[in-house]
Amino acid sequence: MNKKVLTIGDVMMRLSTQGNERFLQANSYNVVFGGAEANVAVSLAQWDIDAYHMTVFPDHDLGMTAIRYLRQVGVKTDHIFFGPGRLGLYFLENGAMQRPSKIIYDRFDSAFANFEGKGLDWIKMLEGVDCFHWTGITPALSQNAADMLLEALKAAKNLGVLVSGDINYRRNLWQYGKGPLDIMPELIRYTDVIVAGLTDFENCMDIIEPDYEDACRQAMKDFPQLKYITTTERNSISASHNQLQGWLWNGKEILKSKNYDMPHIVDRIGGGDAYMAGLIYGMLHFPDQTALEFATSASVLKHSIVGDANLVTKEEVLDLMKGENVGRLLR
Amino acid sequence: MNKKVLTIGDVMMRLSTQGNERFLQANSYNVVFGGAEANVAVSLAQWDIDAYHMTVFPDHDLGMTAIRYLRQVGVKTDHIFFGPGRLGLYFLENGAMQRPSKIIYDRFDSAFANFEGKGLDWIKMLEGVDCFHWTGITPALSQNAADMLLEALKAAKNLGVLVSGDINYRRNLWQYGKGPLDIMPELIRYTDVIVAGLTDFENCMDIIEPDYEDACRQAMKDFPQLKYITTTERNSISASHNQLQGWLWNGKEILKSKNYDMPHIVDRIGGGDAYMAGLIYGMLHFPDQTALEFATSASVLKHSIVGDANLVTKEEVLDLMKGENVGRLLR
Amino acid sequence: MNKKVLTIGDVMMRLSTQGNERFLQANSYNVVFGGAEANVAVSLAQWDIDAYHMTVFPDHDLGMTAIRYLRQVGVKTDHIFFGPGRLGLYFLENGAMQRPSKIIYDRFDSAFANFEGKGLDWIKMLEGVDCFHWTGITPALSQNAADMLLEALKAAKNLGVLVSGDINYRRNLWQYGKGPLDIMPELIRYTDVIVAGLTDFENCMDIIEPDYEDACRQAMKDFPQLKYITTTERNSISASHNQLQGWLWNGKEILKSKNYDMPHIVDRIGGGDAYMAGLIYGMLHFPDQTALEFATSASVLKHSIVGDANLVTKEEVLDLMKGENVGRLLR
Amino acid sequence: MNKKVLTIGDVMMRLSTQGNERFLQANSYNVVFGGAEANVAVSLAQWDIDAYHMTVFPDHDLGMTAIRYLRQVGVKTDHIFFGPGRLGLYFLENGAMQRPSKIIYDRFDSAFANFEGKGLDWIKMLEGVDCFHWTGITPALSQNAADMLLEALKAAKNLGVLVSGDINYRRNLWQYGKGPLDIMPELIRYTDVIVAGLTDFENCMDIIEPDYEDACRQAMKDFPQLKYITTTERNSISASHNQLQGWLWNGKEILKSKNYDMPHIVDRIGGGDAYMAGLIYGMLHFPDQTALEFATSASVLKHSIVGDANLVTKEEVLDLMKGENVGRLLR
Amino acid sequence: MNKKVLTIGDVMMRLSTQGNERFLQANSYNVVFGGAEANVAVSLAQWDIDAYHMTVFPDHDLGMTAIRYLRQVGVKTDHIFFGPGRLGLYFLENGAMQRPSKIIYDRFDSAFANFEGKGLDWIKMLEGVDCFHWTGITPALSQNAADMLLEALKAAKNLGVLVSGDINYRRNLWQYGKGPLDIMPELIRYTDVIVAGLTDFENCMDIIEPDYEDACRQAMKDFPQLKYITTTERNSISASHNQLQGWLWNGKEILKSKNYDMPHIVDRIGGGDAYMAGLIYGMLHFPDQTALEFATSASVLKHSIVGDANLVTKEEVLDLMKGENVGRLLR
Amino acid sequence: MNKKVLTIGDVMMRLSTQGNERFLQANSYNVVFGGAEANVAVSLAQWDIDAYHMTVFPDHDLGMTAIRYLRQVGVKTDHIFFGPGRLGLYFLENGAMQRPSKIIYDRFDSAFANFEGKGLDWIKMLEGVDCFHWTGITPALSQNAADMLLEALKAAKNLGVLVSGDINYRRNLWQYGKGPLDIMPELIRYTDVIVAGLTDFENCMDIIEPDYEDACRQAMKDFPQLKYITTTERNSISASHNQLQGWLWNGKEILKSKNYDMPHIVDRIGGGDAYMAGLIYGMLHFPDQTALEFATSASVLKHSIVGDANLVTKEEVLDLMKGENVGRLLR
Repeated sequence: MNKKVLTIGDVMMRLSTQGNERFLQANSYNVVFGGAEANVAVSLAQWDIDAYHMTVFPDHDLGMTAIRYLRQVGVKTDHIFFGPGRLGLYFLENGAMQRPSKIIYDRFDSAFANFEGKGLDWIKMLEGVDCFHWTGITPALSQNAADMLLEALKAAKNLGVLVSGDINYRRNLWQYGKGPLDIMPELIRYTDVIVAGLTDFENCMDIIEPDYEDACRQAMKDFPQLKYITTTERNSISASHNQLQGWLWNGKEILKSKNYDMPHIVDRIGGGDAYMAGLIYGMLHFPDQTALEFATSASVLKHSIVGDANLVTKEEVLDLMKGENVGRLLR
Repeated sequence: MNKKVLTIGDVMMRLSTQGNERFLQANSYNVVFGGAEANVAVSLAQWDIDAYHMTVFPDHDLGMTAIRYLRQVGVKTDHIFFGPGRLGLYFLENGAMQRPSKIIYDRFDSAFANFEGKGLDWIKMLEGVDCFHWTGITPALSQNAADMLLEALKAAKNLGVLVSGDINYRRNLWQYGKGPLDIMPELIRYTDVIVAGLTDFENCMDIIEPDYEDACRQAMKDFPQLKYITTTERNSISASHNQLQGWLWNGKEILKSKNYDMPHIVDRIGGGDAYMAGLIYGMLHFPDQTALEFATSASVLKHSIVGDANLVTKEEVLDLMKGENVGRLLR
Repeated sequence: MNKKVLTIGDVMMRLSTQGNERFLQANSYNVVFGGAEANVAVSLAQWDIDAYHMTVFPDHDLGMTAIRYLRQVGVKTDHIFFGPGRLGLYFLENGAMQRPSKIIYDRFDSAFANFEGKGLDWIKMLEGVDCFHWTGITPALSQNAADMLLEALKAAKNLGVLVSGDINYRRNLWQYGKGPLDIMPELIRYTDVIVAGLTDFENCMDIIEPDYEDACRQAMKDFPQLKYITTTERNSISASHNQLQGWLWNGKEILKSKNYDMPHIVDRIGGGDAYMAGLIYGMLHFPDQTALEFATSASVLKHSIVGDANLVTKEEVLDLMKGENVGRLLR
Repeated sequence: MNKKVLTIGDVMMRLSTQGNERFLQANSYNVVFGGAEANVAVSLAQWDIDAYHMTVFPDHDLGMTAIRYLRQVGVKTDHIFFGPGRLGLYFLENGAMQRPSKIIYDRFDSAFANFEGKGLDWIKMLEGVDCFHWTGITPALSQNAADMLLEALKAAKNLGVLVSGDINYRRNLWQYGKGPLDIMPELIRYTDVIVAGLTDFENCMDIIEPDYEDACRQAMKDFPQLKYITTTERNSISASHNQLQGWLWNGKEILKSKNYDMPHIVDRIGGGDAYMAGLIYGMLHFPDQTALEFATSASVLKHSIVGDANLVTKEEVLDLMKGENVGRLLR
Repeated sequence: MNKKVLTIGDVMMRLSTQGNERFLQANSYNVVFGGAEANVAVSLAQWDIDAYHMTVFPDHDLGMTAIRYLRQVGVKTDHIFFGPGRLGLYFLENGAMQRPSKIIYDRFDSAFANFEGKGLDWIKMLEGVDCFHWTGITPALSQNAADMLLEALKAAKNLGVLVSGDINYRRNLWQYGKGPLDIMPELIRYTDVIVAGLTDFENCMDIIEPDYEDACRQAMKDFPQLKYITTTERNSISASHNQLQGWLWNGKEILKSKNYDMPHIVDRIGGGDAYMAGLIYGMLHFPDQTALEFATSASVLKHSIVGDANLVTKEEVLDLMKGENVGRLLR
Repeated sequence: MNKKVLTIGDVMMRLSTQGNERFLQANSYNVVFGGAEANVAVSLAQWDIDAYHMTVFPDHDLGMTAIRYLRQVGVKTDHIFFGPGRLGLYFLENGAMQRPSKIIYDRFDSAFANFEGKGLDWIKMLEGVDCFHWTGITPALSQNAADMLLEALKAAKNLGVLVSGDINYRRNLWQYGKGPLDIMPELIRYTDVIVAGLTDFENCMDIIEPDYEDACRQAMKDFPQLKYITTTERNSISASHNQLQGWLWNGKEILKSKNYDMPHIVDRIGGGDAYMAGLIYGMLHFPDQTALEFATSASVLKHSIVGDANLVTKEEVLDLMKGENVGRLLR
């Protein structure tokens, strides 16, 4: 029987310029949909996972289109609601060579951020769920969203669901009067696995350590329920060329994946979400080191895919892990 | 010496589906910029008019792109400011046959609506201006915008500038606590020429008359400074086929333009703005009936142009008025 | 509670030239998916119907893409199977003016045609179904397909499900050794409502009558279980301009819908399927004349939509029936 | 055995804006190739004619691309030469509704205009040719071109080849010091069939007659070798809607074809060349009235085809003549 | 006088996704035509070779378009026939980075595979031919195709034509009841030059040798008429980055070309065919090592060209061999 | 207050094939505008410079479009004139891998080359200008252009304006009867800073020195008013991969910038113009070494931008100089 995962979070329309065009040159935008948590759900839906995403859309054609997109790529849309507010947007200019990529967010006042989620039957939504995944973007959007997430986390805890959280600190969010240290620590206490880098530790967990392993040790002292801490080490040689390695703190040591060279990047957006999806899949099916390799391999493949979501099969991820069919022509 | 016109109003990015696609089918959007008042400025800038547009943009690449668009099509951007807030957007699905066109607005919280315009030097901005043009969209956006507009209108009155206003009642706006009858009558009192249909009369001027001529008479009683009232009579046989005639009440009678058949419409958005631009141009250069014919001819040509703005030359408008070169192949 | 409809039939990838290009000019093809029966399911899925489509796809990326398309537009894909064979294709060149549209079919040896459907649990698939819809294309593809359809029809009869069948005689099919008169009469005996024109009567029911009403009378004599016979009267003035009227024989008389003029056709493919979907919806919800008007209105709107499927809402169909919002700009 | 036709004339790259865009809106141009005479050759090559085109291209990739285009659409390129000079260009903005289409020519200094064609073996090139076709554009380009054409015409006369000429007066050409009356009359004396309208008669044959039939009579007096004079009567209701009728003076009377209504024009460029090709084909295979109907039917179909050239089959032309399959869906 | 080459084989329409899109993301496909043998003919037609291709197409617009494509790129189409069956297709998803490229073939039941080629006048078709080229795909398609090829090979042998064969073993073909070892050895006996890798040796020549040189030696023992055996050594670092070297066994030793680094691949399909075309050209004009360098240089350039065929000039191939103008800007 | 720069030179429409297509594959061309000097003005207009460009366009839509392009990207168009002649064009095929890029110029007889510029008020145009920039393309076009440029240079000298000149020797120009050595030395005598490579020295300054430093020394002897000589050292590994370093001779020594690796080039056209713009900006604001680093950084970024012009901000150039944000994702 397939494992079942529930993700929660806002979904935005992504409007990206054509090819290597700058914003100033754009006469049209390509449209896909994405969001840090939905990207995880989409990834998982390509594999043998029943992936549900909980979110809220405005009740007009753009909201419907977002739902249809999720349905198309295999996400279960049973837990999607309609409510007042906008569909969040983000504009993307893909970088090239030494020129960085740029994102302009236009996501405030979204239907998800406005949603008064109190009273939702989280017990029912979490029934049978093997993993519940959230990110630090949700509590950064609005008090409503932070409250709803806390309620969901409590329910998950009660049900014994594995909880993963991507800390994902974004300075430009958190504009509703609370700061991350007001909110995040409580949420993290209900979480088993976190994605966190040094700036996440500092801003959301008040852990200031220059060394990653030290930071992990401290985090496990402060948040003793944590089982795993993970991050990706990305070396940005240029917008077209990155290197990537996954790190996984298992409470005792930092496991490291194979280090991948990525010299012809197609689209790096969602690379971290692909990693997280891979790790969730891995934790539900594999031992630690294999899970980590699966996660990193999935993330590498994401960089070859246009759009936020990692539209690759499990077989493709496994092949890359094993070094099979790399860059071949499959007939 | 060229005449000088100043328009004021918000400018949105327009995201329209390709060809006849529905929102639900869109994988990319075409991008242009538009706004009821800026469209008037763009039209006028194609002719021998120095057209200035006053507006406010967010200080990022999308705002810059909007400015560059206006500059490209010939509008003077000296009176464009930057301020906090979004770039307003609207999504357009072009209808066809019996299927209507659809617009989804996403314009709240724009930099223009947020702009605290108090203390601007309107006297300087209006110096040498032959016509100042506003629409009922501006005061419907925010108290700030309504206040700024009133200040501008008072300055225009003091300087003896001809003022035109397109009443343009939109039920979905007016969400800041005031209604049109709270705000519009005072603004109209500073205006010489208005575009108004029966619903505009009712909602913004409290004039409920089933007959257009009677409504005009009543309007001139209630707003005795008005010199002209104008409207376009549009017969929508289908989204692809309309008929159009301009009406101009000159205080005594309704002049009517030639009635045009438009059976192969390319893009009807901005047809009214093109009419208003034509009428402003006409009033600054021609007798009443000629002005009206110029306005209607300009509006008809707009329906053959992709985008909000009427990118046609004065010669093309005059040719159509005279029935010359209609639909020919000019080598 | 939503009504439930099950359709059965092959689904093809449609490869159409861009805009008005001829096949000889095509450097790329647009891709959608369609099939006479799936088009009905897609239409119904836009309204308040749980629409299931039964078909068979090859187990590779093209088959998966077809499934994802159906899922995106709202069709339930629970009854889709994988099997050996191709994904059927058809190439479309859109006509214009006096130049006809052209279709080149490339559908032989499809996974659906090859499918040995014996032993499927039709009782389960038809559980709760309010209407089961088939067309004459399915039995024309292969003996397998004809046998499977007969089995399904018998099950539907047993369960008392309303059955509709679009006779849809295609001379170029029927290449597996049987002719329509060998197969169709038995299938029609399990059917309550048929779409049939004079050539369908002649080729599939052996009824040769020059007058449509006489043909209906005769059909009801030969197939006394029939409740309704319907057809669309299409007047093809040009590829860009058709006129359309729906006819519905109710056992006593021919009801006729409003006759629609369609002078700016976008895409006529699937117009008949949109009609049939409208009629099924109408029969499940409205009296006869209203059902007929709903069907014709739906079909008219289809002609404004790119692709095989009628992506319009129920409200849009009803608006056109009432003459509301026709060709307007909805903000 | 197929008939053989030789045409002569310059071929230009056509750069047209996308869809309904104006020049001022173009971010890309579509590329095809065309020229009044080559368009005739391309039309004929679609039917059972061996169509040769004589022209001259610059010896670089753009010239090669033009040759490849001609080869692709079936024209024999044995008589194409390379020489110094440019590839002529023209820019096209397609009109819509009342807005006219516009062409900007950029064709001076072309390799064809520069070509010193003296000493070519016209006898060999004209061997077995059933019809030689030229237009008034060639002698308008340069003295070289006029001289070469005269040489070719003399050879054609000697060989008894049927000669057709499209007078095609263009005021903007004729810039090399000679006027049409200096050059055209001599060329016309070697010609059997001419396409000419009233302005052609006046400017190239010095015949000023307001009535077409009178003009034909006078032309036959002045140029007694003429066998046929033909023209198309085009009624330009708009850029999207024309009406078309072919007229053929056979020495005694004006035959008139069926008058066609064309309300959804795709591309009118080359409509006259398609007519001429149809007439040449008709004269080589049919009686006069049939030839005229074939020519007009071919020209009507051209208006539905993107590009300069009439990519339709003989069967399609005949079908339209007979009113068969008009605007149908052919499967 | 130009050398003359005849190739034989099926030609497919290639439908490839846009840019880096996956099949699951494709809304349109780019269209070109290709086939292992036709690709060789197209390459040779860019140089000073009269390149003929023998194949069979269905007699409809898609077949005609394929012929027009070949004609456009310079292939002589005198030996192309029409017959019953499909136009073969293949769908291509271009890989990127570590993600492999994918091809889905849809080529069964093609007009070429169905063609009963017995009785063709091969003597006439091979008259004056300097090289006849076939591949192992043809005999893998059908008994008809294998028989026709054998007949052609016998005629070539009789006429003393140089014969080259690309063994090109494809496991997914060979579905008509025969295996490669039933058919290929006899065909190879009529062949002078073969392209073969280790799997080809094993599957088609029953030679199992881990070392390439040993395999060549054995092949020359088993097939003593062979003059050359060649292969390309491709190192697939990723889908975007390959390295390529040509190897040529001349009966005594393996000559090796320069080894090329190719880190920004545009389109690798047809790289082997470009190599073979280069080798044929080289064998007809150059000594062995030069021929090999020409072949490898041609193949490298192919990787920068979109589509199956190597649209480069002889000068470009020679320049790369000499290291001239590599990656420059030529004005 | 912003610095002010005036550039002079012809502006061409650039027609480039899509993506990696060859000329022979192009069905459409992308359109931008460029010219060696206008590219400098566009670059500078992105920074805090008032950039004016002096040129001449034909008085039709294509000329207007060129003006609108310059206006859009921020160049002041006050000194643009209309005159008889063409709009110059160039066709661009972007190379890839080892395949070079190709340009076909079609620029003769342009309005700029034809312009009789005598009597222009250069004193007024140069008022307040901090730097006047010209290239060796202008005097290579026509005697008119050379004369006009000399007049401008004399005026600049009188006003004490810093003058920069890009020698930019192009063998294919200089077709009006004069050679570069007839014209260039006099122009260089009015110039403070030149861009020159070894071939420029040889062809335009009669300095034949194999060593760059020696050549600079000699140039400063022959043209003692020169203050700086500069060049870029470009290593073309392939069309996709270059390396770039700026060199600046300051009268005493050659300063060298950081050497940049550019392995994923998007568009190299205008790289030199971006360098020159950077150097002008640098010389007006920074010390020598900083100016040189700014110039090289600007040029590197240009290689990531589609089109001739370097649409990057000053901040982006400075970031790359400092190694900040290189290839990152900026949110």
